[in-house]
Amino acid sequence: MTSTVDNKSEVVQSGTTISIDAMGGDLGPAAVVAGIVRVVQKNKKIHFLLHGQQKQLQELVAKRQSLKGRVTIIDSLEVIKMEDKPSHVVRHGKATSMWSAIDSVRDGDASVCVSCGNTGALMAISMVRLRKLNGVNRPAIAILWPSSNPMGFNVMLDVGADVRADPKDLLQYALMGVSYARNGLGIAKPRVGLLNVGTEEHKGRSELKEAYAKIEHCQLDANFVFEGFVEGGDIPGSKVDVIITDGFTGNVALKTAEGTASLIGYLLREAFRFSPLSKLASILAFTSLNRFKMRIDPRRVNGGVFLGLNGTVVKSHGSADATGIEAAIKLAFELSKNDFLQKVAARVAYAGAIDNDVYDDAN
Amino acid sequence: MTSTVDNKSEVVQSGTTISIDAMGGDLGPAAVVAGIVRVVQKNKKIHFLLHGQQKQLQELVAKRQSLKGRVTIIDSLEVIKMEDKPSHVVRHGKATSMWSAIDSVRDGDASVCVSCGNTGALMAISMVRLRKLNGVNRPAIAILWPSSNPMGFNVMLDVGADVRADPKDLLQYALMGVSYARNGLGIAKPRVGLLNVGTEEHKGRSELKEAYAKIEHCQLDANFVFEGFVEGGDIPGSKVDVIITDGFTGNVALKTAEGTASLIGYLLREAFRFSPLSKLASILAFTSLNRFKMRIDPRRVNGGVFLGLNGTVVKSHGSADATGIEAAIKLAFELSKNDFLQKVAARVAYAGAIDNDVYDDAN
Repeated sequence: MTSTVDNKSEVVQSGTTISIDAMGGDLGPAAVVAGIVRVVQKNKKIHFLLHGQQKQLQELVAKRQSLKGRVTIIDSLEVIKMEDKPSHVVRHGKATSMWSAIDSVRDGDASVCVSCGNTGALMAISMVRLRKLNGVNRPAIAILWPSSNPMGFNVMLDVGADVRADPKDLLQYALMGVSYARNGLGIAKPRVGLLNVGTEEHKGRSELKEAYAKIEHCQLDANFVFEGFVEGGDIPGSKVDVIITDGFTGNVALKTAEGTASLIGYLLREAFRFSPLSKLASILAFTSLNRFKMRIDPRRVNGGVFLGLNGTVVKSHGSADATGIEAAIKLAFELSKNDFLQKVAARVAYAGAIDNDVYDDAN
Repeated sequence: MTSTVDNKSEVVQSGTTISIDAMGGDLGPAAVVAGIVRVVQKNKKIHFLLHGQQKQLQELVAKRQSLKGRVTIIDSLEVIKMEDKPSHVVRHGKATSMWSAIDSVRDGDASVCVSCGNTGALMAISMVRLRKLNGVNRPAIAILWPSSNPMGFNVMLDVGADVRADPKDLLQYALMGVSYARNGLGIAKPRVGLLNVGTEEHKGRSELKEAYAKIEHCQLDANFVFEGFVEGGDIPGSKVDVIITDGFTGNVALKTAEGTASLIGYLLREAFRFSPLSKLASILAFTSLNRFKMRIDPRRVNGGVFLGLNGTVVKSHGSADATGIEAAIKLAFELSKNDFLQKVAARVAYAGAIDNDVYDDAN
């Protein structure tokens, strides 16, 4: 089903190859292609495998001179919709662009996959096709969360791969999150916090106390600093670099923060619309407000990373535009360049051994 | 231990009596007394029982002419600190101002209690002294959450009374939250949402599906509209008026939103500090920004309400200043005026009967 827009084997020879699911995002393949255009202009070393409906993609790609020789289109007949159930997709999704995009990573044709489609389906297909890393029970989705830390971001996981997490899962999240902070943000010795409702040790759920002990035990060997329990207010704060929680709590926190930011944006616009004078003030304040908007623009940090699989998958926001797609591809490229996957695998394997020692010590 | 600043029996004769724990807040009793001063100037019908160290309180009250005849000081020797463990306080806290403030409600001397002390201790003492309402398993803390709804607020519970909630608890939270929305916000037929990670019914934890069925079953009899599952983004949104969740998730969401708002405030100030021109713009935008700040000022909606006890307790923020204390007292007065406690009790008792019917139907 490979088209002949470019010769695939030629494309793969040098640099990094990124597999992209062109379909399934809210803005369709045009936004995806526009995002790729932005990337190729700045980075000459990335090649793309573009999965989706061939005719549509050929038209979009042919219009862009800069994409010549940089994109291989791989035809797939079907598209996964946002409302499709993951369980259904896993059984009946073989002909979809998402499946095909993940298979390019599975087959070694690309080093990382990017999709802005249905998150649940993407995780389900990734689990089935890439399989979990040896020793990982529950994969996780990690995101970069805007924060008051010097880098401007913290790593937060799990934000929605699984609604539950056992103490052992939370330990693995900590280790994978530390790898991500090191390779994605360049923090040599990340500080890790375990999300809870109070910083005193007597508060919170009992499974969190068990996770606390496990993570604390691993901090020296895995070269991170465990700061203990943190609260919701620390997620955008500067106390830690990596925040660990289960996917239910993490997803609620993420959506709550997005909702809060959008309410504040709305109220801010209202405040400036109040009177003629405030309208004038808003025009004068325009560049400042724009600078502020740039800083918290979720499109500029777009990309959740699936951790704990035999392959790197970057989930872009469903409503991502060209700017958002560009950010997701950049993140995918960074992770690929740093051999992120191999580092995470080594970390998890090592941690498995350490964690078993905890029990050996106890016995 | 009652002082003679005012004659207690005289105070209780007319209007509403509110019992206040003057100690334990971050800003001490001076902020509490300043908050009371603001209230008495606007409302002639409230009397106060002020619990704390007599000498200190007498000095503060004597300075304020407007408090003459409005405040009865009740001496208590000890103060609960923010770091005190609830379990310790329940065993050894009898001589504290918090205990004494709650006992005034228990003894019928006041209709509602306000404290800005340690939340865990306040809930623990309230449970022991006031006891749970007949039929309630887990009391909850409800707050008013700034939202884009016409009233400007949604009701959210539980934000931290208990780290777990069973389906039956979530049903009770829904009913108590509906009562609160009706009496605190004046919404005749509140719309209720159950917090989950996805709005599709196949997502989320299994206990939430059970709670879904229970709440849906009660909506007609209890005169509310159940909108089904909602996500974190709906907490500050306009889709529902009441959001139901367990105290772990609710507390994380609350703290995350507070942290997000404070990060945005920080970034906004940074953006306006960037250049001389943006500094000038910020001066011109001053009133707009101030209007915005007023709107999201947490002090103006200060006060979590403990629901599910034989007595109403309002928890003010630990760092509340005079404005915050005033808001908490106003809320306490509104609830007392509306016979809120009796309405919640009736609602819970009635719901218990309906919920039992669910099982009878199934059998």
